[in-house]
Amino acid sequence: VTDGAEPDDEDAWVAGAVARFGPHPFLVGPGDDCAALRLEGADALVVTTDVVVDGVHFVLRECGPEAAGRKALLVNLSDLAAAGAVPLGFEVGVVLPRGTPREAFDRLVDGMASAATRWSCPCAGGDVNVADAPLTIAVTAFGRPGPMGVVTRAGARAGDVLSVTGPLGGSLAGRHLDFVPRVREALALARRGVPHAMMDLSDGLSRDLPRLARRSGVGAEVAGDLVPVHADAARAPPPGRTPLEHALHDGEDFELLVAHAPLADATRRALEAEGVVLHEVGRVTEAARGIRLVVGGAAEPLAPRGFDHVAGRGRGRQP
Amino acid sequence: VTDGAEPDDEDAWVAGAVARFGPHPFLVGPGDDCAALRLEGADALVVTTDVVVDGVHFVLRECGPEAAGRKALLVNLSDLAAAGAVPLGFEVGVVLPRGTPREAFDRLVDGMASAATRWSCPCAGGDVNVADAPLTIAVTAFGRPGPMGVVTRAGARAGDVLSVTGPLGGSLAGRHLDFVPRVREALALARRGVPHAMMDLSDGLSRDLPRLARRSGVGAEVAGDLVPVHADAARAPPPGRTPLEHALHDGEDFELLVAHAPLADATRRALEAEGVVLHEVGRVTEAARGIRLVVGGAAEPLAPRGFDHVAGRGRGRQP
Repeated sequence: VTDGAEPDDEDAWVAGAVARFGPHPFLVGPGDDCAALRLEGADALVVTTDVVVDGVHFVLRECGPEAAGRKALLVNLSDLAAAGAVPLGFEVGVVLPRGTPREAFDRLVDGMASAATRWSCPCAGGDVNVADAPLTIAVTAFGRPGPMGVVTRAGARAGDVLSVTGPLGGSLAGRHLDFVPRVREALALARRGVPHAMMDLSDGLSRDLPRLARRSGVGAEVAGDLVPVHADAARAPPPGRTPLEHALHDGEDFELLVAHAPLADATRRALEAEGVVLHEVGRVTEAARGIRLVVGGAAEPLAPRGFDHVAGRGRGRQP
Repeated sequence: VTDGAEPDDEDAWVAGAVARFGPHPFLVGPGDDCAALRLEGADALVVTTDVVVDGVHFVLRECGPEAAGRKALLVNLSDLAAAGAVPLGFEVGVVLPRGTPREAFDRLVDGMASAATRWSCPCAGGDVNVADAPLTIAVTAFGRPGPMGVVTRAGARAGDVLSVTGPLGGSLAGRHLDFVPRVREALALARRGVPHAMMDLSDGLSRDLPRLARRSGVGAEVAGDLVPVHADAARAPPPGRTPLEHALHDGEDFELLVAHAPLADATRRALEAEGVVLHEVGRVTEAARGIRLVVGGAAEPLAPRGFDHVAGRGRGRQP
């Protein structure tokens, strides 16, 4: 990012692009975890695109092509989950570094295929190219709306509880390559009408929560003492972060962030019986209160320190 | 491609991947210009993915980001046309080289947006990343089936005429960056029930025709004297090719190759009244006859010399 006149921020670039594209006819357009197309006589189609690149989202020489292929599909399944959608299939575009052996390509495909089978999300087609480029895998996944239709980032209301579907932080220790996209959890929540708004935590709670808040037109307060910290946080780079800081800023947790009304006990028990636990992390507030972190009774602004894909850095991923 | 045991050929890699993914539930699965998903209570959804990369599909420092963005969408519209589909929208994943100015990104978006407007194919969403990588643009486009449903590469029959929608060759002189995807032409053909099989010519007639023939289980004979040669062929690299060789092998023509019954005069006139001209280039034969080129009464095998995306070369594009 060399244009000093523009904010050094992925969201500003994306917002600029959305404005340049102009009005759209979709049920849900750019700017959410998924888009949704109205289709005559049928449910909407939910679609999402995520690209993973060697050196940014994985390190090929460390993880190998199978893990890279698998992650490429998993991150998209996580977006479908955020929309409360049921996976239908995916398209994939691959750029292979020149000289890639056929066997490495086959293992990449195997990684995608195993995730495709496990999550009932088969490959519909794609495109393969060779270039003087790092391994790049672009996936567009399709889904059909789940029991609540298309769940978006909009819809959170002041007074809502903010919860996550699992502990956060330390994903870089390895979990980011082979996580469980919360497809099943999202559908369990949607069957009970729980989510007012939902998104997946890919860039860290401190960067993703403001996105949900902005789309919903609300503020939010994170209760530092409540945030569930993953055991990986203790052994993850970079050193010098407290466990809570890992949980707030690391990113690639791929848990769902859910805004919802306080859960009735019966609902909580029914969800737990299905293995779905919502960990409360805070509350939705009026927009004017901004995004705040409360620790030990003291509130401070919660500044985004997760990964920024345009700046190509975040204190979490690349210190 | 370093594994000498495998054929040095894009199609072999793709076929291997399709086999590894296993059975699929789609109306049309991997291996055609587009895939098609059955949707309950609605038309199928037609989807296609094409990735363009700096140094392979365009040279950024020569063409600029606007042309790159535009081409990324046009090549996908060309695939929708090949399926006789009506564009609905697209998703885009972008990898920007580190240090890309915001202004270059905006121009890339403008290039896509102008094509999106012209072809009524709005952006539904996407993903932006920065990496130590050449500019890479992955587009997945959606469409609804046109008047003949989903037209595929299968369906050509011995005795069919093979036609193209415009002259071939020399696209590298510049046309490959700003061509007219044959969406309108495809729909005009489909309204009259013309295509038995159809595909777009992206890798050159000599490489693409065998793909259509293989999917249809037929052979084909190209009449060298009939092939319409584009005026650009005379001024396109590499030197030393005859105009006919340019037309057969260069690739990136993005005209449609159509297998169809001989046209009734009334149909031909009606098409021409809409500005759609089918140029006959040959005939579909029995599979056993292979893919042949007939020039001046002498037949020879027509060897693929178009661009191979896995080998990363073709005598057309990178001599």
